[in-house]
Amino acid sequence: MKRHNSNTTHPHIVIVGAGFGGLRAARALASAPVRVTLIDRRNYHLFQPLLYQVASAGLTPEEIAYPIRSILRRQRNLTFMLAEVYRVDLKDHQLFTSAGAIPYDYLILAAGSVTNTFGLSSITQHAYGLKDIDEALAIRNHVLSRFELATQQTDPKLRQTMLTFVVVGGGPTGVECAGALAELIRLVLRKDYPDLMLSQARVILLEATDRLLSHLPPDLGQAAQRALRQKGVEVWLGAQVQDYDGQCVKLTDGRALPTQTLIWAAGVQAAELIQNLPVTLGAQKRVRVLPTLQLPGYPRVFVIGDAAYLEDEGGRPLPMMAPVAMQQGEHAARNILHNLQGHPLQPFRYRDLGSMATIGRNQAVAALFGLHLKGWIAWLIWLFVHLMQLVGFRNRLVVLINWAWEYFRYERAARLIYPPPQAHQGIPSTASQPSETPSVASLAAPHIHS
Amino acid sequence: MKRHNSNTTHPHIVIVGAGFGGLRAARALASAPVRVTLIDRRNYHLFQPLLYQVASAGLTPEEIAYPIRSILRRQRNLTFMLAEVYRVDLKDHQLFTSAGAIPYDYLILAAGSVTNTFGLSSITQHAYGLKDIDEALAIRNHVLSRFELATQQTDPKLRQTMLTFVVVGGGPTGVECAGALAELIRLVLRKDYPDLMLSQARVILLEATDRLLSHLPPDLGQAAQRALRQKGVEVWLGAQVQDYDGQCVKLTDGRALPTQTLIWAAGVQAAELIQNLPVTLGAQKRVRVLPTLQLPGYPRVFVIGDAAYLEDEGGRPLPMMAPVAMQQGEHAARNILHNLQGHPLQPFRYRDLGSMATIGRNQAVAALFGLHLKGWIAWLIWLFVHLMQLVGFRNRLVVLINWAWEYFRYERAARLIYPPPQAHQGIPSTASQPSETPSVASLAAPHIHS
Repeated sequence: MKRHNSNTTHPHIVIVGAGFGGLRAARALASAPVRVTLIDRRNYHLFQPLLYQVASAGLTPEEIAYPIRSILRRQRNLTFMLAEVYRVDLKDHQLFTSAGAIPYDYLILAAGSVTNTFGLSSITQHAYGLKDIDEALAIRNHVLSRFELATQQTDPKLRQTMLTFVVVGGGPTGVECAGALAELIRLVLRKDYPDLMLSQARVILLEATDRLLSHLPPDLGQAAQRALRQKGVEVWLGAQVQDYDGQCVKLTDGRALPTQTLIWAAGVQAAELIQNLPVTLGAQKRVRVLPTLQLPGYPRVFVIGDAAYLEDEGGRPLPMMAPVAMQQGEHAARNILHNLQGHPLQPFRYRDLGSMATIGRNQAVAALFGLHLKGWIAWLIWLFVHLMQLVGFRNRLVVLINWAWEYFRYERAARLIYPPPQAHQGIPSTASQPSETPSVASLAAPHIHS
Repeated sequence: MKRHNSNTTHPHIVIVGAGFGGLRAARALASAPVRVTLIDRRNYHLFQPLLYQVASAGLTPEEIAYPIRSILRRQRNLTFMLAEVYRVDLKDHQLFTSAGAIPYDYLILAAGSVTNTFGLSSITQHAYGLKDIDEALAIRNHVLSRFELATQQTDPKLRQTMLTFVVVGGGPTGVECAGALAELIRLVLRKDYPDLMLSQARVILLEATDRLLSHLPPDLGQAAQRALRQKGVEVWLGAQVQDYDGQCVKLTDGRALPTQTLIWAAGVQAAELIQNLPVTLGAQKRVRVLPTLQLPGYPRVFVIGDAAYLEDEGGRPLPMMAPVAMQQGEHAARNILHNLQGHPLQPFRYRDLGSMATIGRNQAVAALFGLHLKGWIAWLIWLFVHLMQLVGFRNRLVVLINWAWEYFRYERAARLIYPPPQAHQGIPSTASQPSETPSVASLAAPHIHS
């Protein structure tokens, strides 16, 4: 931390997490007379909204992730630290991390969220989450392996179980993931497996409530549902998962669905670090923050993004989405600078620019500036917005090439099974997770989850 | 295997391995009245000559690998099978695989080679091999992690151990890997770690004999050595490794070199499947084949590529290189067709089109058509030849973009540490290999190899 030595009189602002919120906060402090330390347990910033495309073999991890050191290279008052944060010591103003204790003058907690299985331990054990690169790659490997195994399987019942893919959760992630899987199968894998009866392959989207995309106006949710059905996705509404043993998912209404693939996109909750704070937690174990984004009782600690619980003027909780995190990141940084200058802190106000979801080829829904957009035009806007938000010109160019490839050639470049298929370990409850790398031989066992 | 049913009277040719040799053999049989089954334990064809660029964060795995089913999609007489081959039953003409027993009329063994540590178990345990995607990614993760840890390390001696990178083997892989690592550090990471004394970082290439690139004329080996030194690589000739405990490599002459990174590119040997054949093995445990590429005593079994040992007219063993494998693949296929038509088999003759190696930016050596080329012109030829040999237009385009990016921007796109750093398990002796995925915290332990 040599860069700090010259400015040790400057206040030290520590940011935990280099997601959308943490990164914006760091950038907003670039020209301020402060020392910034940004801590993350990964060395890259992940563009999470496109993670489902890694899971469905459309993009590679490198195309939606960017080294944090590259992004912040020119920010001379910032030090990046690759470390795991174990605990926040609010009393003594320090963090305990894998790289030792880090004292802070101001703290911005942008630790994000993890998959929430609502206490269903069978889900935690057997389902696939979709929150990080390794989970996306695990889904890709698993789905592609199901097709390979199905070609070698003579029992039609077991083959059907292999070719049934269930996605849980009718939010943007679930909708986009189900649409992308259906297109992977019907447009791309159809050519790879001419001998397989791909009419056997099913993609089923389970949603516990009576509608999809509940954060969007109802007509858009219905449009998404129609578009999914056109693409071959079966949408089951009012379908609440009770149990999954790796071979069959059981619903609370008694229905059972044999499948070897359950992708859990039904909910998230604040990261473990946040859950362990000695403060009142709100919904999804998020921290209830003051309108200034401060932690109640700890004026020098700010919580932002998925980790923070705050309601808008109408009393609705702010959604756990990238735009909220980004705006809060900038706001927390500004409030810290206000505080340093002796100015009063400002309450956060979310500027809702709209939101959208894509169902696949030529199909998306978007609520933007009061307009409800569907179909091709929404899809073009979705493409443009997501392409432009990617970090780095090279990533944009390569993603554009891959999308064009997919669009015109019905190909997906990342159809590789590597690293060797892992014995699936379920959804990580913490960052640390043991795993095994068996040979391809173990693929042949019908129960890989055992 | 429905495609076979219609032609069950056609002879069944089984090819083991979808590397350069196996793929060429499969293609050469495309229009013949035969049934072809291609078996590989991976679902992709890997362009091995560029694997070191994945290890040095320049390219992504998806850019140098291509799904086998895509490559052979139009070949109607071929079935691909993702399976591990356990054993060849030469007597009863069948293979035992993870997908069951596969009978054959003709067999082409193109199982390739694995890393050879010459019985040094400490190397097998602690060093990194460079033969497959997961090994390349493991090197990438490990090297990038060393820099992250070095920024957190206050003990200068330990920091030096972290920033010393040793490559063993003065063949093309070792030379190219050492050059690429040196450039990664001096051109790219220098910008990522402005606070680290990167003059501390060392890349050392160890070669047991007295020259580099012994398959090329001596003047080119010397040119490569000069180019490596210009790029900051220390070249130690006559340096034979005796032992490595994960922290310090010991040479047979008593020298010791503290390092946390040993990349073993000092030799290969035939794959285990080949070693276990009940036949006479040649150097590197390769199978001594007849000039027709047949296995002595088994006229319907052909062995090609790295798995086969054959000498040229001058009594020199054919090198374990892609061009040999490709030519042998076509030749074995042709000989099978000769045999089916009752024609005599032809002996294999290697057409040596030359060989080359790159040292990095603007530097390569090539022996082509009797010419000895060095420097910039050799580098341009190397770029062109490797780009054109990649499978698929998209891959060529994306690799070209990445190379241009690297050349003009001094950037490497794939500078990501994922999946979470693995507790290194050494060089796999078989395909099956257990591994652990600890949290980033375990990175901080100085002995990750324990």
